[in-house]
Amino acid sequence: MPVNLTQPVAAQSLPVAGVSLGIAEANIKREKRKDLLVMQLCKGARVAGVFTKNRFCAAPVIVAREHLARAEITGSDGIQALLVNTGNANAGTGEQGMQDARTNCVALAGLLGCKPGQILPFSTGVIMEPLPVAKIAAGLPGCVANMRADNWYDAANAIMTTDIVAKAISRQVTIDGVVVTITGIAKGSGMIHPNMATMLGYIATDAAIEQPLLQAMVSEAANRSFNCITVDGDTSTNDALMLIATGKSALPEVTSIDSNAGKELQSAISEVAIWLAQAIVRDGEGATKFITVQIEGGKNEEECKQIGYAIARSPLVKTAFFASDPNLGRILAAIGYAGVADLDVDALKLYLDDVLVAEHGGRAASYREEDGQRVMQQSDITIRVVLDRGAANATLWTCDFSYDYVKINASYRS
Amino acid sequence: MPVNLTQPVAAQSLPVAGVSLGIAEANIKREKRKDLLVMQLCKGARVAGVFTKNRFCAAPVIVAREHLARAEITGSDGIQALLVNTGNANAGTGEQGMQDARTNCVALAGLLGCKPGQILPFSTGVIMEPLPVAKIAAGLPGCVANMRADNWYDAANAIMTTDIVAKAISRQVTIDGVVVTITGIAKGSGMIHPNMATMLGYIATDAAIEQPLLQAMVSEAANRSFNCITVDGDTSTNDALMLIATGKSALPEVTSIDSNAGKELQSAISEVAIWLAQAIVRDGEGATKFITVQIEGGKNEEECKQIGYAIARSPLVKTAFFASDPNLGRILAAIGYAGVADLDVDALKLYLDDVLVAEHGGRAASYREEDGQRVMQQSDITIRVVLDRGAANATLWTCDFSYDYVKINASYRS
Repeated sequence: MPVNLTQPVAAQSLPVAGVSLGIAEANIKREKRKDLLVMQLCKGARVAGVFTKNRFCAAPVIVAREHLARAEITGSDGIQALLVNTGNANAGTGEQGMQDARTNCVALAGLLGCKPGQILPFSTGVIMEPLPVAKIAAGLPGCVANMRADNWYDAANAIMTTDIVAKAISRQVTIDGVVVTITGIAKGSGMIHPNMATMLGYIATDAAIEQPLLQAMVSEAANRSFNCITVDGDTSTNDALMLIATGKSALPEVTSIDSNAGKELQSAISEVAIWLAQAIVRDGEGATKFITVQIEGGKNEEECKQIGYAIARSPLVKTAFFASDPNLGRILAAIGYAGVADLDVDALKLYLDDVLVAEHGGRAASYREEDGQRVMQQSDITIRVVLDRGAANATLWTCDFSYDYVKINASYRS
Repeated sequence: MPVNLTQPVAAQSLPVAGVSLGIAEANIKREKRKDLLVMQLCKGARVAGVFTKNRFCAAPVIVAREHLARAEITGSDGIQALLVNTGNANAGTGEQGMQDARTNCVALAGLLGCKPGQILPFSTGVIMEPLPVAKIAAGLPGCVANMRADNWYDAANAIMTTDIVAKAISRQVTIDGVVVTITGIAKGSGMIHPNMATMLGYIATDAAIEQPLLQAMVSEAANRSFNCITVDGDTSTNDALMLIATGKSALPEVTSIDSNAGKELQSAISEVAIWLAQAIVRDGEGATKFITVQIEGGKNEEECKQIGYAIARSPLVKTAFFASDPNLGRILAAIGYAGVADLDVDALKLYLDDVLVAEHGGRAASYREEDGQRVMQQSDITIRVVLDRGAANATLWTCDFSYDYVKINASYRS
C-alpha cells in the first residue's frame, strides 16, 4: 500500500481557467477502464515541457517535442490539446509507432478543428507492442463529449498504470492581490529514475507566463522534484512533465524569474511538482517505506546527488529498510562506491533521522542498536549524510524494495 | 538454488605445490561452522592482487595492500600466509578495525614464526560490527594444526557467507613439456558488482612468475571475469582477488606475457577466474536464471560495458527474466538510458539467444511471442545486442531478480 498517501478527494483538484479535460474508456489494454484523456487548452495558452533523456524514447515523445518546438515559433498557432493514453507506451515501435502517434494527432485535430501540429501526444504502458490506434480513434469522441473544467481528479485516475492511488494536487497563491491557481496530476510507480521516470506529469496554472520563462520554470521544477526520485533505477522511454500557463487570471504576464510574481510562481509550481514526485515514490511499486536521502556539505550538488543516488538505488539498502533492519553498514558501502574519488570516509557523519550512526569511518560510540531499530520501524525515514567538505546539498526521495516489487514486475504484462 | 552449478567434488580441487591450507571453527558469527582459513605459502612464493575500489574499503583491505606493497620491495621477506575469516567484514569499523586487522596478523605471525607484515588479512561478512579478535586468535592454532596441501575444498567451504555452494576449480596445462597446476577458490553471492564484488578469490599456481607480470596477469584475469559480473549492483567494501605463484613446478620463471608460457598461463588463469566469477553469478542470491549479456559492434569496450551493465543491473529486466516473461521492451529501455549519448537506436539489433527480437527501433517483423517465450523458459539465456557502429565487444554475466533475493537480504543479519 502507498506510504502515507491516500486517494485524493476530487474536490481538492481545483479547475484552472482555460483548461478542460475529457476522459473515455477506449479498452486499450483492459475493458471498462478509463484510459484516454484529452486536455483542451484555451487560445493563447502556452505550454513548455521536459522529456526523458532515454535514447530509446517513445514515438509520442518525439512527436510532442516536434510539435512543441514548432508551436513555440508560430505563437498564436499554439498547442490546443494534450492527448494521453495509458495501457500502451508506443515505445520501441519503430517507424510504425511514429505513424501511429501522428495518426492520433490527426484524429483529435479533426474533432477539435485545429491542426495536428497543435496536439501533443503522450503514451504510457507496456513497451514494444503496437499502439491500438483504432481503439484510440474510437475513444476520442467520448473524450470530447466529456470535456469539463473540473475533471482533474478523473484525469489523474485515467493516466494510471501500476499506480495504486491517483496523484492530484492544487495550490492557490495570492500574487500582487490576484489569486492564481496551480493544479497538477502525475502518474508513475515503477521504472522510476531520472531523467526522468515512467512518469507523466501535467501542471497547469491560470497565470500568464512568457514562453522562455515557462520553459525555465518547468526545468527548475523538474530538477527539484522528478529528477530527485528513484524507485528502481530504470529510466523510462516515455517520461514527460508539461507546464501549461493559460493566462486566464487577472495577473499581468510574468516575464522574469527575478520579479516577485516570478519567484512566487516558481515556488508554488515547484511545490506542486515536489508533492507529485513524492507521491510517485510513496506509491512506488511494492513500497512500504518512504525514504528521504539528504546529503549535506558536499563540494558541489553533483557529488551530493551521486552519493544520494548510490544509497537510494542500492537493492541492499532498500531490502534492509523493507525488513526494518538497521543493517546500516550497507549505507556506508553505497557511499563508498558512489564514485566520488577523493571522498574522505573518516570525515563524514551518517544519521538516521536524529540518530548519529557512523563517524570516524565506523560506528559512532554513542550509537545503540535499539535507536536504529526504533527509527527503522517508522514508515517515513530520513537518511542524512554530512560530508563536511563543502557547502552543497541535495535531497532525494526513494522507497524500499519488497517482495511486492518483484511480484508486480514479474507479472506486469499478465 | 544455484543455476546449473553443483557443489564441487573435493578431489577436483588439485593441490598446488607450495601452498598448504588450514581451516578451523572460530565461532565468529555462528557456532560449529568452519569460518577461519590460513593459506601458508612456501618461501619464495609471489603474490599479487586486485582490491575493491570502494572508498569505504575494509580495514583488512588497507592492511593487505600495505603488506603486499612492502613485501614486493623486500623480496625474500615475501608473503608467508593469507588469513581469511568469514562472518564479519571488519568494514566501517574505523581505527579499531585497523588495529584488529593488525592484531590478527601479529597473532598468526607468532604461530608461523614470521613477521606480521608477511601476513595478508581478509574478512567477509556483516559490515560495521567489531571484529571478534579474541575468537580469531583462539581459532588460529586449529588452522595451523590442520595445515594440508589437499584442503582446497574445505577452504572454499570455509570462506562462504550467503553462498549456497562452494566454488573451487582446478586446471592443469602442459607448458613446454611441464605440467602446471592452477587451482582457484572464491566466495560471493550478494553485494556483487565491479569493481569488484563481496567477493574473495584466491588462485594459486605452481609456476614461477616474475612479480610485475604476476600483477599484470591478475589484473587481466579480473577484468575478464570478476569485473564482468553483477548480481545487485552493489560494490562491496572487502573484495579481493589474489594470485599466488609458488614457483615449485619445473617450469622456468615466466617473465613476459608475450612468451608462449606467458600466454598459456594467462589464458589458464583467466579461465579459472571466469569460471569462479560465473559460479558466483550462478549462485547469486535468489538466482533462478544465468544471463549472459553480450554487446557487439560498439565503438569501444567502455560503451559496450556501459550498455551491458545497464541491462544487467536493471531490476525491471531482471524481474522479467525471473517471471520467464518476454517483456523485452525493458531491455530496449535499459539500452536507451545506458548513457551512450549518440547511440542510434534504429541501427541496433536485439537477440534473445538465436531469436531476433528487435531492429529498426522496434519489434522485428519476424519476431513471434512464442519464440521469446521458449527462450525465456531456459535457465541459461544470452541477451545479445549488435550495435553496428564499431568493432568492440563486451560480455557480462548476471542473474535474475527473485522473491528470494529480497528474502535473503531482508533477513541476512538475523
